[in-house]
Amino acid sequence: MIKLTEPTLLLDKAKCLKNIAEIVEKAKRHNVELRPHFKTHQSHEIGRWFRNLGVEKITASSLKMAEYFTEDGWKDITVAFPVNVHEIDRINFLAEKITLNLLVVASETIEKLANSLKFPVNIFIEVDCGDHRTGVNGGDFATIGNILSEINRFGLLNFKGFLTHGGHSYAVRGNKNALLDLHRKSVDSVTPLRDKYSTQFPDLTISYGDTPTCSVAEDFTEIDEIRPGNLVFYDVVQSEIGSCTLDQIAASMACPVVAKYPERNEFVIYGGGVHLSKDSLTLSGGQKSFGKVVNLTENGWDTTETGAFLKSLSQEHGVVYAPKEYLEQVQIGDFIGVLPIHSCMTVDLNSSYLTLEGKTISKFRFY
Amino acid sequence: MIKLTEPTLLLDKAKCLKNIAEIVEKAKRHNVELRPHFKTHQSHEIGRWFRNLGVEKITASSLKMAEYFTEDGWKDITVAFPVNVHEIDRINFLAEKITLNLLVVASETIEKLANSLKFPVNIFIEVDCGDHRTGVNGGDFATIGNILSEINRFGLLNFKGFLTHGGHSYAVRGNKNALLDLHRKSVDSVTPLRDKYSTQFPDLTISYGDTPTCSVAEDFTEIDEIRPGNLVFYDVVQSEIGSCTLDQIAASMACPVVAKYPERNEFVIYGGGVHLSKDSLTLSGGQKSFGKVVNLTENGWDTTETGAFLKSLSQEHGVVYAPKEYLEQVQIGDFIGVLPIHSCMTVDLNSSYLTLEGKTISKFRFY
Repeated sequence: MIKLTEPTLLLDKAKCLKNIAEIVEKAKRHNVELRPHFKTHQSHEIGRWFRNLGVEKITASSLKMAEYFTEDGWKDITVAFPVNVHEIDRINFLAEKITLNLLVVASETIEKLANSLKFPVNIFIEVDCGDHRTGVNGGDFATIGNILSEINRFGLLNFKGFLTHGGHSYAVRGNKNALLDLHRKSVDSVTPLRDKYSTQFPDLTISYGDTPTCSVAEDFTEIDEIRPGNLVFYDVVQSEIGSCTLDQIAASMACPVVAKYPERNEFVIYGGGVHLSKDSLTLSGGQKSFGKVVNLTENGWDTTETGAFLKSLSQEHGVVYAPKEYLEQVQIGDFIGVLPIHSCMTVDLNSSYLTLEGKTISKFRFY
Repeated sequence: MIKLTEPTLLLDKAKCLKNIAEIVEKAKRHNVELRPHFKTHQSHEIGRWFRNLGVEKITASSLKMAEYFTEDGWKDITVAFPVNVHEIDRINFLAEKITLNLLVVASETIEKLANSLKFPVNIFIEVDCGDHRTGVNGGDFATIGNILSEINRFGLLNFKGFLTHGGHSYAVRGNKNALLDLHRKSVDSVTPLRDKYSTQFPDLTISYGDTPTCSVAEDFTEIDEIRPGNLVFYDVVQSEIGSCTLDQIAASMACPVVAKYPERNEFVIYGGGVHLSKDSLTLSGGQKSFGKVVNLTENGWDTTETGAFLKSLSQEHGVVYAPKEYLEQVQIGDFIGVLPIHSCMTVDLNSSYLTLEGKTISKFRFY
């Protein structure tokens, strides 16, 4: 086993490659373009594992993140966040070098953007397919029409299509039918836009996708591209939603045990909010879990249920609830594995990965 | 006003200096040593603002953090985390150069530590004063006696005293008497140890302290040193506890508005879990707040109640609930201020501060 001394973000490369291969193959099977979201892994190296399988277009959650990926040769990037015109310098820098796709949710943004733009960009209009975070209602042709008219006024802006993100799929728990139903409704809320606008815009793209629906659904007929990102590693929430099995989770935090309190059925690890994030999951018994505790092995970690989970986090301390039998095996100084509740957030906190073979993989810290 | 383009961690240096001056003066007034926790600010520069007022000893939450502060000349550091013996190389590196104080919670750690130690270190025994996270029960003389016997076996280990952290003060809400009562009980759980052990250890130190009690209490007679850290900036939770006023909060996130949804009483900011952390506070009406929204001004921010707060966070998006009157004044492209729920966690996510005068202050990222 690799030598560990402190909280360490572990990457099971084999599991990760398998997750990537599955979605690449699925996208091909359904004849949709895979434009994976890279905000989960934030790494040049892991990005290449997608490129090696033919992926050429990606999604980022910020312009800074897009810049980082252009450094490794990515030339077609969608920044899937309502465009922040204050960052016009970054926008121009990127637009000069690559195919840059920006997201617009309001017509007033268009003129401000166009007035300082120096190079062409593509525009996706974000459509709210049910998660009510950002986006225009798919049936709101008035607003969409206004945005399109605005786009049309400026030669450097090219309308590319409609983009949606079904983040509300994250509320589903282990109910495949509910997930497929949500998928159907999400798709139905955006695809009528093709009927309405494809005459005017024959190359219009419908861009879809979140990890739960993209993992489980098998019908993407009206969709042109999918953008799931979390599925590169998956996490405990995804397993609870039903997007994956626990065994598909490809990243975990290895944390040393620093104290034991059998009288409370607890042990404490060096691993807190600054390592894991404070994302939590409510378990069936009503308790909150901040991470699923598993045993590390020679080859990674064992997903056999230990019954132990992180019940609370401070900045660097993690308090684990552990059933008596499990607690008896744990000693101060041992390393345990924590399967992350939300891998995007856990990974974001760490500056590099350690593979099970002991290789360090770098990633970027954007803030 | 300074030019902002993206989510930015703002520091009101005047408010920060005032917070520092107040605790320095308070510690003098009560004849206790101030050994402030530097895990909140994580910055050489801000550390010097303490040093300028005569502070010579500090607290860190990890050995890495201690190393960072030794670079700026700090020579007496307590790592207030149960010692992780795997990091023996860091321990030896530090112990050779400075006065290093380590925390022990279990006797089995002592021998492992001593066997690889090359230079002298001081040992604090952590005592649980009521927050039941880590530490020995103050009345558990058997365990304490075992630990002391173990320490006594090794010439490089020097017993320094008892350290406690009343983290349970964080559950108090705006009730000064409850806080003072908790303070009294916490102090009472650790100070009998002086009676018991001061004959054997005449220079024994009782180290105490969390921001709520250290901010509000005025009786530290049995205490030798206090270690509050959060009070350098304070935050919304501290104002709810009653440790400070909103006006004392010295750090905020400036975030641009990217979308508006008057029909939902919401607007969306570029500012999510990766900028703020997902610490939340339950408001009196039962809703969760991930940050208090305020107006930015020429001189920082205005703490006048806007009624707006962050109701949910994604990785980079923040959804703000905003009452109608406030929402009407907000435009896409405006910057608003977010007072952090938990400043330690928000600051940890960011790689530097921007003062209101436009100066960048660096800090370290440990993971």
